[in-house]
Amino acid sequence: MDYDLYVVTSSELSCGRQTLEVVREALAGGATVIQLREKNWTARTMVEVGREIRKLTREAGAGFIVNDRLDVALAVEADGVHLGQDDLPASVARRLLGRGRILGVSVGSVDEALEAQAAGADYLGVGPIFATGSKADAGQPVGPELISALKKIVSIPLVAIGGINRENAPEVVAAGADGVAVISAVVGARDVRLAAAELLAVIRAAKERRGNR
Amino acid sequence: MDYDLYVVTSSELSCGRQTLEVVREALAGGATVIQLREKNWTARTMVEVGREIRKLTREAGAGFIVNDRLDVALAVEADGVHLGQDDLPASVARRLLGRGRILGVSVGSVDEALEAQAAGADYLGVGPIFATGSKADAGQPVGPELISALKKIVSIPLVAIGGINRENAPEVVAAGADGVAVISAVVGARDVRLAAAELLAVIRAAKERRGNR
Repeated sequence: MDYDLYVVTSSELSCGRQTLEVVREALAGGATVIQLREKNWTARTMVEVGREIRKLTREAGAGFIVNDRLDVALAVEADGVHLGQDDLPASVARRLLGRGRILGVSVGSVDEALEAQAAGADYLGVGPIFATGSKADAGQPVGPELISALKKIVSIPLVAIGGINRENAPEVVAAGADGVAVISAVVGARDVRLAAAELLAVIRAAKERRGNR
Repeated sequence: MDYDLYVVTSSELSCGRQTLEVVREALAGGATVIQLREKNWTARTMVEVGREIRKLTREAGAGFIVNDRLDVALAVEADGVHLGQDDLPASVARRLLGRGRILGVSVGSVDEALEAQAAGADYLGVGPIFATGSKADAGQPVGPELISALKKIVSIPLVAIGGINRENAPEVVAAGADGVAVISAVVGARDVRLAAAELLAVIRAAKERRGNR
């Protein structure tokens, strides 16, 4: 899985555009992972749209993760599921998913990170790095410092999330992030494809600089 | 599975009492199935409370079904899952559940009933039989007539739901219902245990009269 540019959907933040249209544009711009995150949708709609995203991501060679609903992830044959601290316990999800699918877990502290890794998470969503308006319940910003701290003590990939954009992404990558997750910075952009392409270029350039250090 | 008195939880309609307390009382009154249906709970809370309901129902010899969240049903080792027309498609759920667990599907018409049976449902929730205040999106009442009609064309158990109480339950059973599902009539009663016991007695008496016809 290439976590470089991990785009999380939000129909509320897509300025009236359809989620599928936004996903298509984000993939065209180079998004490497799409996470379907729609807290107000029915499971039926999640499955219907999820099946389409599965096709689009497969064609684009991108990963596809479903937020919260492990059952929907299985139903649409997503690559995995992403869970928050209020969702299914990670250890339970690991058992239900089997080893064939990816388990991502949101963490906001060292303790949560160690617990999620021990429970069998394949990657961590770390944040909110900066203040964000995209998630009402995101909590206090943890800063890129948590990425640097976790990089020393956990072995699984770290995907930074929360208030990240073109300007501050280099700092987050420099701290050690394996990928950058965004909602508004891509799905809320005027030109979704351009926003994704520019952000991906910034992230990859920062990774290259980090590799050359 | 004994569908006689199928009690559906609703923390909103439980008059401030805890769901677990209401479940304990409903089981003491003789509820034969408990369905955990809490649309506003997180998956984490569903799992925590669901594990307790699993213990209580096992001790009582009652069935335990989880509404909507197939993943939670698997996580807490419920006997099965109940799906509405906006939830996971029944055919997908059948595949994910395997044959070991029960699949219930809400239907409000002959077409939906035939489709659900063909998709592998183990029982049907049929309704709303009468007008109900417990579900905002329940649709127009179908009357006990739909039970009589379905009894002739589907082979799986029919659980009637929607506005059923002690007074009208005999009519629903006479129409052919294999069980009666209630929310308010039990979880919203002043004395939950008594309400369950009285309703169960009415249902069983009506079944006996039906058997003797």
